[in-house]
Amino acid sequence: MPAIRFWFDPASTYSWLTVLRIGDAARDADVEVHWQPFLLGPIFRARGWETSPFNLDPAKGAHMWRDLSRRAAMLGQTVCRPDPFPGHSLRAARIMTAARTEPWMPDFAGALMTAAFVRGADIAAPEVLTGALESAGAAPGGWLARAEAPETKAALRAATEEAAARGIFGAPSFTVGDELFWGDDRLEDALAWASGRHPLQSDAWLDAPGPRV
Amino acid sequence: MPAIRFWFDPASTYSWLTVLRIGDAARDADVEVHWQPFLLGPIFRARGWETSPFNLDPAKGAHMWRDLSRRAAMLGQTVCRPDPFPGHSLRAARIMTAARTEPWMPDFAGALMTAAFVRGADIAAPEVLTGALESAGAAPGGWLARAEAPETKAALRAATEEAAARGIFGAPSFTVGDELFWGDDRLEDALAWASGRHPLQSDAWLDAPGPRV
Repeated sequence: MPAIRFWFDPASTYSWLTVLRIGDAARDADVEVHWQPFLLGPIFRARGWETSPFNLDPAKGAHMWRDLSRRAAMLGQTVCRPDPFPGHSLRAARIMTAARTEPWMPDFAGALMTAAFVRGADIAAPEVLTGALESAGAAPGGWLARAEAPETKAALRAATEEAAARGIFGAPSFTVGDELFWGDDRLEDALAWASGRHPLQSDAWLDAPGPRV
Repeated sequence: MPAIRFWFDPASTYSWLTVLRIGDAARDADVEVHWQPFLLGPIFRARGWETSPFNLDPAKGAHMWRDLSRRAAMLGQTVCRPDPFPGHSLRAARIMTAARTEPWMPDFAGALMTAAFVRGADIAAPEVLTGALESAGAAPGGWLARAEAPETKAALRAATEEAAARGIFGAPSFTVGDELFWGDDRLEDALAWASGRHPLQSDAWLDAPGPRV
């Protein structure tokens, strides 16, 4: 079955939009999704940024919050900005890494990120993490512990290094083999690519009339 | 008739995609388009950037060129990167400003930007500007001269200042009154907003079931 890898940071606003819609979109496209949590923080710091570009550039940030509200409305959601932003996503990303093969992990991501962006919750707060785990039907105690295991920390670190090596510079991103797509807006293009249905993957369109090099 | 303002820099890759498709999209939506050329250079320099973010961040730039090829293929076009990138768009933007109420101005923009991104042409080169003007059915001599008139230079400067004042940080952008949309991917949302058809503009969706603050 064709598949895409969905790279996301739990603190990322646009990743939340994808989390809300990727299940249905992938099902409709008959494509499997491999959920890949990673951390944007190290990738930003490697560029000399101490925080998100949305905070570094006020105009970009203002547009993002407004755009998020508009796009969320299309998914039936309102938006409340969490404080701090970006949230500290280390613990959440570790839980997701430990639980990456669990069928409930997408539900946990949805519950946690909806708490963050609809209710302004702090994704680093133990009660928020616990609530999202319970909401997903997982036993919180065990998973909070597994998140702190050395192999979990190592796996998350490796994922973040792999993201950087693949040229990932933001979230959400999607990869199909080496083909990289950045942004919630590219979910459909990534699904089409995985299915071999993207125009650039065939020569048919080259024979269509139009200006050519 | 509902209308949107289409803010673009002739050197902008994603603005080119919009130029190719905005005529049909706006016609289908029954929305008028006011074409607004402006310069990104001063907006970048105000942030301390000497060039495009696509050059400052190699990973972001690499993704952009690949993404442009993928998106252009969906419009039946191939891509050839021009040198320099970004092109020096001052003269082109002045011509477009002088000709902003001419019915052929969109055709000039399309011809010029297609020369740049399909054939790698230099948008500052006189023969490229002349060729695009002729392609659009305009007499080159007169328009190249009008581009250098004091009132044209002032109008372009004013447009760029207005862009910055409106919080525009990239191209293409669309405005409907004070509502700002950034990115070729937001053309449809901007058209919907102009028509009053965007979910955030009505309360109907608030009564739909789903998690709420």
